[in-house]
Amino acid sequence: MTINAERIARDIEAIGGFSETPPDVGFSRPTFTPAWRMARDYVIAEARQAGCQVRIAPTGNVHARPASIAWETPVWLSGSHVDSVPTGGKFDGVAGVVAPLEVLRAHPEAPLELIIFAEEEGTTFNLGMLGSRAWTGTLTVAHLAGLSNRDGVSPLDAGRPYGVDAAAMVHERLDPRGYRGLIELHVEQGPAMWKAGQRVAVVTAIHGRRQYRVHLMGTPNHAGSTKMDDRADALAAAAAIMTGLEALAQRLSSRQDHTVITVGQLVVLPNAINVIPGEVTFTIDFRASTNAMLELGHDGIGQLIKAESARRGICAEWAATESLAAVPLDAGLCERLRAAARQVGVDPLPEAASGALHDAAILAPLLPTAMIFVASRDGISHNPAEFSRPEDVALGAEILAACVNGAA
Amino acid sequence: MTINAERIARDIEAIGGFSETPPDVGFSRPTFTPAWRMARDYVIAEARQAGCQVRIAPTGNVHARPASIAWETPVWLSGSHVDSVPTGGKFDGVAGVVAPLEVLRAHPEAPLELIIFAEEEGTTFNLGMLGSRAWTGTLTVAHLAGLSNRDGVSPLDAGRPYGVDAAAMVHERLDPRGYRGLIELHVEQGPAMWKAGQRVAVVTAIHGRRQYRVHLMGTPNHAGSTKMDDRADALAAAAAIMTGLEALAQRLSSRQDHTVITVGQLVVLPNAINVIPGEVTFTIDFRASTNAMLELGHDGIGQLIKAESARRGICAEWAATESLAAVPLDAGLCERLRAAARQVGVDPLPEAASGALHDAAILAPLLPTAMIFVASRDGISHNPAEFSRPEDVALGAEILAACVNGAA
Repeated sequence: MTINAERIARDIEAIGGFSETPPDVGFSRPTFTPAWRMARDYVIAEARQAGCQVRIAPTGNVHARPASIAWETPVWLSGSHVDSVPTGGKFDGVAGVVAPLEVLRAHPEAPLELIIFAEEEGTTFNLGMLGSRAWTGTLTVAHLAGLSNRDGVSPLDAGRPYGVDAAAMVHERLDPRGYRGLIELHVEQGPAMWKAGQRVAVVTAIHGRRQYRVHLMGTPNHAGSTKMDDRADALAAAAAIMTGLEALAQRLSSRQDHTVITVGQLVVLPNAINVIPGEVTFTIDFRASTNAMLELGHDGIGQLIKAESARRGICAEWAATESLAAVPLDAGLCERLRAAARQVGVDPLPEAASGALHDAAILAPLLPTAMIFVASRDGISHNPAEFSRPEDVALGAEILAACVNGAA
Repeated sequence: MTINAERIARDIEAIGGFSETPPDVGFSRPTFTPAWRMARDYVIAEARQAGCQVRIAPTGNVHARPASIAWETPVWLSGSHVDSVPTGGKFDGVAGVVAPLEVLRAHPEAPLELIIFAEEEGTTFNLGMLGSRAWTGTLTVAHLAGLSNRDGVSPLDAGRPYGVDAAAMVHERLDPRGYRGLIELHVEQGPAMWKAGQRVAVVTAIHGRRQYRVHLMGTPNHAGSTKMDDRADALAAAAAIMTGLEALAQRLSSRQDHTVITVGQLVVLPNAINVIPGEVTFTIDFRASTNAMLELGHDGIGQLIKAESARRGICAEWAATESLAAVPLDAGLCERLRAAARQVGVDPLPEAASGALHDAAILAPLLPTAMIFVASRDGISHNPAEFSRPEDVALGAEILAACVNGAA
């Protein structure tokens, strides 16, 4: 049997069918919800159908490998996630799950373990890559217990009905000796490859990310009787900081491509049409491909918040909520992917850098890690219009198959 | 007898004692409730004590004038309201009732009628200035019947035990020939006078108000993998528009003082830390003292939204949700107040414009109308911390007395 793009397309459609929201609005699978479980169960059933043994780990991650290969035997690891951002796309994460699934169907004896990481996106518990972080131990049980979803429930409690076991988790950390390496396939989520006509690429680095929460406190007051000069308007301050952040990102990205700053979440209080906003809370997501650039941007962000709030008599608090270093991927494994690509007729395999974070970044310090990118139409992602060609995902799967089946 | 600040302070404290909530939480007197009636009854008793005849009109408004002056004789009208916003301050409205009360005590023969307008704030029945609108006929009985308070009761039904009579109301509209003019005293509710060290001011205009709802649609996308130049970020566009609106307001207010623009309400979608915002909805509240400025600002706001959204590939929709014209106050009566102020040693009488709406705005098209503002400490209003100096209210009352007692 060979890699089959139609089967991949069918998998993606089937998983897309499990969503809290209708397809025209977008695909919504928060981790540890019925929609998420149905997607996970679909993959588990398909893997079993392909002759795999399957286990749900105490982290909530799913592991599947050929039944003929003992769990102790070192194999290649490949997978991604089936959770989504709210009203996201069909391909983000899912492509990286169905590609190794298809490899296991086409090559039932492949030395390959499929993994579904539980909670990659970070929108369910306000922190991403929980499954990989829990598995590697970079996130403790205590830290997991302190997170909460939209219902105020921690991933430990929310995950219990889905196999999460806090007590067992600590005894079952990733042992690097158990795997030859990780190859995560993912859609690019940016337009670079699509614009360049590249169907697949090898990812040589994953950008570092800093995230911040900013809280601005001004003075709520009457929108009619308070002159412009007498205001301490928290939203006006936020707007000035946001335009400053955009300019900062443009300046930094002209020095180092792909440097980006995003304000994705913003909440206003009291949020009434005729009251000057007294409080604004917003998030900053900042990514760059080198740690030097991350430091430079960190300083710029801090100076901007400080200067703009001081100028306006606004009390500003800001705190880093995440700091992940830039991650160079494994040069040897990247080279192995290039050789595999040549076998399936892709020569040279284009190179890309990942602006987005992936579970691969969490495992990279422990295992030889690389990534395969598949082009995203017009770069649209986290959006129901997200699209990648199933035949491009299949091409990525062929490279993955050639890589794991190749000579040691 | 002369105007006495201590008597004024005593009145304000006494009325503050009639509240549904304790003083540390704030002063709460919804219209047509026992607390409101006690405040009204206090003023009625004090007016009778001062030798006034008193009547409760079918609108629920209270009228009091010297018993020696027949109801048919044209006199000056002065008053405000004793209803409050929930947990409001002691001075808003009350200062404008006790000032003419004190004038009637000090000058028992003054050609002056005190009025308490029933329901000014708008928080009891979700529409403001009911007493003045009912009296002038700008609000019909049918419209009043369609309003309701927190218990689902209309002002006609809720007001019946307090003297409201829907049948009689239509036969007793304001006859402009019955009054020489209206002078409403009110606390400023903004910090301008307090900061400038002005105790009292003449209000030359009540601002007009335009309100808008703006909807921006960009492209939600991945915060990590979408380069700065490839974005259509609805929140970044909103931030640029907001900073533009602030600059516009500053430009316009340098040409015409008190022009203000506020973005009070803003909602982001999907509002996730790692997703470029796809949609933003926000409100604009724009006030100015002349209709020419309102038109100019309207055009500026439209151009700004159009230019900024076009530049960024954002689809923008905006619609006006309210348009209230500016109300110029009577120039002759303002001049008369200036002359009265000179008599009591305030020269020149500072000028102010009212960003907030008042009953005076409703009567201004029918009667020569002006307002006296008294400074608000730090501009705080609609808040238990609201404070004006009783001696400043007394100074306003002296100007009022000099105005109504002056030569015709």
